[in-house]
Amino acid sequence: MQGLPERFLQYIYKENLFNKKNKLLLAVSGGVDSVVLCKLCHICGFNFGIAHCNFQLRGEESDRDEAFVKELAERLQRPFYSVRFDTKAFAAEHKYATQEAARILRYDWFEKVRAENDYDFIVTAHHADDNIETVLMNFFRGTGIRGVSGMKPRNGKILRPLLFAKRKDLEDFQQAEGLSFVQDNSNLSNDYTRNFFRNTILPLIAQKYPEVQDNLLDNIERFKEAEILYQHAIAQYRKKLLQQNGEDIYIPVLLLQKTPAVQTILLELLRPYDFKPAQLPDILGLLYSESGKYVLSSTHRILRDRKHLILSRLQEVSSSPVVIEQPGNYVFANGTLSVKHTDATAIPTDPKVACIDASAIQFPLLLRPWRTGDYFYPLGMPKKKKLSRFFIDNKLSMADKEKVWVVEMNKKIIWVVGYRIDDRFKIKKQTTSVLRLEWK
Amino acid sequence: MQGLPERFLQYIYKENLFNKKNKLLLAVSGGVDSVVLCKLCHICGFNFGIAHCNFQLRGEESDRDEAFVKELAERLQRPFYSVRFDTKAFAAEHKYATQEAARILRYDWFEKVRAENDYDFIVTAHHADDNIETVLMNFFRGTGIRGVSGMKPRNGKILRPLLFAKRKDLEDFQQAEGLSFVQDNSNLSNDYTRNFFRNTILPLIAQKYPEVQDNLLDNIERFKEAEILYQHAIAQYRKKLLQQNGEDIYIPVLLLQKTPAVQTILLELLRPYDFKPAQLPDILGLLYSESGKYVLSSTHRILRDRKHLILSRLQEVSSSPVVIEQPGNYVFANGTLSVKHTDATAIPTDPKVACIDASAIQFPLLLRPWRTGDYFYPLGMPKKKKLSRFFIDNKLSMADKEKVWVVEMNKKIIWVVGYRIDDRFKIKKQTTSVLRLEWK
Repeated sequence: MQGLPERFLQYIYKENLFNKKNKLLLAVSGGVDSVVLCKLCHICGFNFGIAHCNFQLRGEESDRDEAFVKELAERLQRPFYSVRFDTKAFAAEHKYATQEAARILRYDWFEKVRAENDYDFIVTAHHADDNIETVLMNFFRGTGIRGVSGMKPRNGKILRPLLFAKRKDLEDFQQAEGLSFVQDNSNLSNDYTRNFFRNTILPLIAQKYPEVQDNLLDNIERFKEAEILYQHAIAQYRKKLLQQNGEDIYIPVLLLQKTPAVQTILLELLRPYDFKPAQLPDILGLLYSESGKYVLSSTHRILRDRKHLILSRLQEVSSSPVVIEQPGNYVFANGTLSVKHTDATAIPTDPKVACIDASAIQFPLLLRPWRTGDYFYPLGMPKKKKLSRFFIDNKLSMADKEKVWVVEMNKKIIWVVGYRIDDRFKIKKQTTSVLRLEWK
Repeated sequence: MQGLPERFLQYIYKENLFNKKNKLLLAVSGGVDSVVLCKLCHICGFNFGIAHCNFQLRGEESDRDEAFVKELAERLQRPFYSVRFDTKAFAAEHKYATQEAARILRYDWFEKVRAENDYDFIVTAHHADDNIETVLMNFFRGTGIRGVSGMKPRNGKILRPLLFAKRKDLEDFQQAEGLSFVQDNSNLSNDYTRNFFRNTILPLIAQKYPEVQDNLLDNIERFKEAEILYQHAIAQYRKKLLQQNGEDIYIPVLLLQKTPAVQTILLELLRPYDFKPAQLPDILGLLYSESGKYVLSSTHRILRDRKHLILSRLQEVSSSPVVIEQPGNYVFANGTLSVKHTDATAIPTDPKVACIDASAIQFPLLLRPWRTGDYFYPLGMPKKKKLSRFFIDNKLSMADKEKVWVVEMNKKIIWVVGYRIDDRFKIKKQTTSVLRLEWK
């Protein structure tokens, strides 16, 4: 077996992580792992600075760790950066678990220090055992292929050049080199679970499968490649199924249904639009629902149209026109418009319902926000009137006016939705077939 | 929650497993799971027979189980099939672990009974907990994506219509219906490990993740779809990288090296040709080796040629000609032929070496088995001679004759490998450059 520094360099080379020209910002807690990382980078002549977070979760011990890392940086004559977080307050304020809060604070701050001081990369001391434990936690908490393929040695600006090494390798090196260190902060609940897998579960399983550690590392390698192939397949479906149409994206329902793994493909296609796995049942429901049903994410709406799922940004949803190609339900910014044929020729009294002479109608109709310059023939009036005038006559507020939509056909307004139909389309004596529009 | 029979029927329908026209052969040990399977098939009016294996591993208990299942079949008025195996002897003879021996005996026999008695499918009582335990055993023993996507409800002729149900569902049903059963055979070592995960590991993990059972079932669903997408990607690489060339398959090395997951792709491409994961390092080595190196499976050879890996069936390897396009090492049925240029004009004495006048040679040469009708000008003789005659003169046995290969150029034989070169290609006084062929 080669020495740790040689294996370190080989791994960096093999994974093409960094070289001596790069400026590295090392994330150092002061524990064995990060102290060994410092030593290795020092021995190998890399150009690095040291960053330490004091989460102030363990009183004096936290301060002791900070002082220790500061001293280490001075001894190695490296730039030192540190910060103190009120982790508890941040967690409480944003309703995060403490572990999650610490993670967010840590990486945000590292990135800030990196960018401000012209470092190329943030380098962490995660090792093979960390990777195994992370995969186990993901696995039992429930995960897809991403969660079992482990941490990657390169993830954006964050590099993990110790993933090749087992905890024992690092401890042996620390002892052989006589490196001093502090005990890692272990009172985060994530660390409790981690320790549980490390100290309880894995030793038990090793009684049945003595090679369990190596087996899990092999798995990670295999799943990593499997994930690449999986992403490759997803990329092809993305290309095939997402059709840009103006500002919207159309997904053909039949084509989607024919794919061999509808749920997974749909989830992956919609992931960039902030839809969550928990919404999947609702979204799958759209495949079998009538037109007009939709599901919202924080940024997007996915709407069932006749042959497509239509994906729109919410800011565009608020004013994007809707084409009405046939009777059915159509979602627009103010709700749903239901369009159907009926024989009932009674004149409705509800302003949210419009009954018009079907023989005067040719699809498609267009449902859109009103705009300056629009005019129509208000029911019962022989002359055309500008909508702006009509609104004044009807004493609409500015806010109300902004929300008005119209239904038009061939540039003629049929209905000012919720207010008045156009006289040209009204039910006449000879009318036998009625088109009923209802705003819900 | 619906009753078990309704969920059973829904799952069968959803997974399109079988219907009332099918004849089902139920694998029944007499334990809770298989007794419930019988009852469900009975209630739902499916057409089934019952098959029971007596592995004779637990003396009287094994016989008691057999008698129990026989009686069950009589009570339900179903055809009954049983067999007794000397499992220990079979395992010893074929060097299998007992569990593995039992598995092989069981499925071989089920298939035999199925085929002889016109059953459409073999139906087993594997349930969701079995599936979880299987996945856990695979995971910790080391596996790829296949091993974490669980048992499939349909695997060829074997159907598993209870995979939707948890053990507890089956036990509740057994109690509610007052079904009698025998204790499952649990002295196979596989069952020990299974029990360890069931009774030790999973309850421990449930302390940290109370939903662990459902999480793992969700994982199985997700990995199942991920595996489909993975196989989809593999199928595309298979199409792109495997080029049929006569009886052989060519894999372009550069194209293979450019793929994003060389190891996995290579392993999957070669899996149908009986190459094993353990051979992967050797096979990967071929990507960086000189021409002529190869790796064998039980049925195939994969050979490094200049720009390709060439995959050949072993029976064709034994007589397939080898094109020699330039100096180098070439593998053929009898060993390797090394071809190189040299300045040494000494005549070799070893019959396994041929030195010929390089100026008389134009590549490519062809290395092939001799055939009837072949002739050449044996060194030192002015007249051509048939090889068949030459072999008689040299007293070759029938077996020796069968193994003779020749090197030819433009239909002229240069060398009867291991015996004599052709006079037309010998080294002459004016020869300055020599081509040296050596059979190793």
